[in-house]
Amino acid sequence: MMDIEQQTSFRAFSDYRWDEVACLPYKEDGAAPFKAISRQVLFAEGQLGCELRYFEMAAGGNSTLERHEHMHAVMILRGCGQCLVGEEVRPVRPFDLVTIPSWTWHQFRAAGGEPLGFLCMVNALRDKPQLPTEQELAALKSHPAIAAFLDV
Amino acid sequence: MMDIEQQTSFRAFSDYRWDEVACLPYKEDGAAPFKAISRQVLFAEGQLGCELRYFEMAAGGNSTLERHEHMHAVMILRGCGQCLVGEEVRPVRPFDLVTIPSWTWHQFRAAGGEPLGFLCMVNALRDKPQLPTEQELAALKSHPAIAAFLDV
Repeated sequence: MMDIEQQTSFRAFSDYRWDEVACLPYKEDGAAPFKAISRQVLFAEGQLGCELRYFEMAAGGNSTLERHEHMHAVMILRGCGQCLVGEEVRPVRPFDLVTIPSWTWHQFRAAGGEPLGFLCMVNALRDKPQLPTEQELAALKSHPAIAAFLDV
Repeated sequence: MMDIEQQTSFRAFSDYRWDEVACLPYKEDGAAPFKAISRQVLFAEGQLGCELRYFEMAAGGNSTLERHEHMHAVMILRGCGQCLVGEEVRPVRPFDLVTIPSWTWHQFRAAGGEPLGFLCMVNALRDKPQLPTEQELAALKSHPAIAAFLDV
């Protein structure tokens, strides 16, 4: 379980960065396929029971296609794009909400013109993501809308 | 502990309302002093361990001056205003972060021109707020900046 020291009360926003919040590359160890994502942990105090993170991918970039037991509660904050949740692909834009249930394949993809940024709330105690096997990926691509989304 | 049914995966935003999210008056029973606040619960699935709510007060409105054991993790989403946390009064604007620690007096106040809206993340298990006694209010008002904030 991740914890951080008590934050100061006020942390100002400027250009999708926040005072005292580190901007980290996401999964930089190359363990998962993704493209140009940064991560900022906005709140992670233990007594909250959860964490709020801000992820941002460059224009045209995408997050990892993955699933896990823990759920994600997402609010888009910046830019437009598309999101796959289960067998559904939908456009997303600022302040839209996306619920990613347990064990549901999901991926975000930024449109071409602008970064896509979103808030993601998760339980502080959570499992690690799984990547699709070749068979699972083939099953997903049997849906034309998903194939079109994944092959963009 | 509050819980809700599993949300649909995508809930669109429009004019500070969200699909399938009820917009509720806040503390309408008159138990606490406040002015024109609405509340929308965006995420409250039990497995998250926490809830994400959106509160909005009308231009010139304010939230209740209160404190409690549970902490608040806040991100301003709309409009400008001021916020009291402990003995500090600070201006706030969209996407600024405000951390309200345990047992810390706090109040939000919208500027005159526009509603002030913010996300507030809390542990799903939490205590009820306390209002200040006359003595506690007098102690707060002994700070000139707080007196100016409270008497606006």
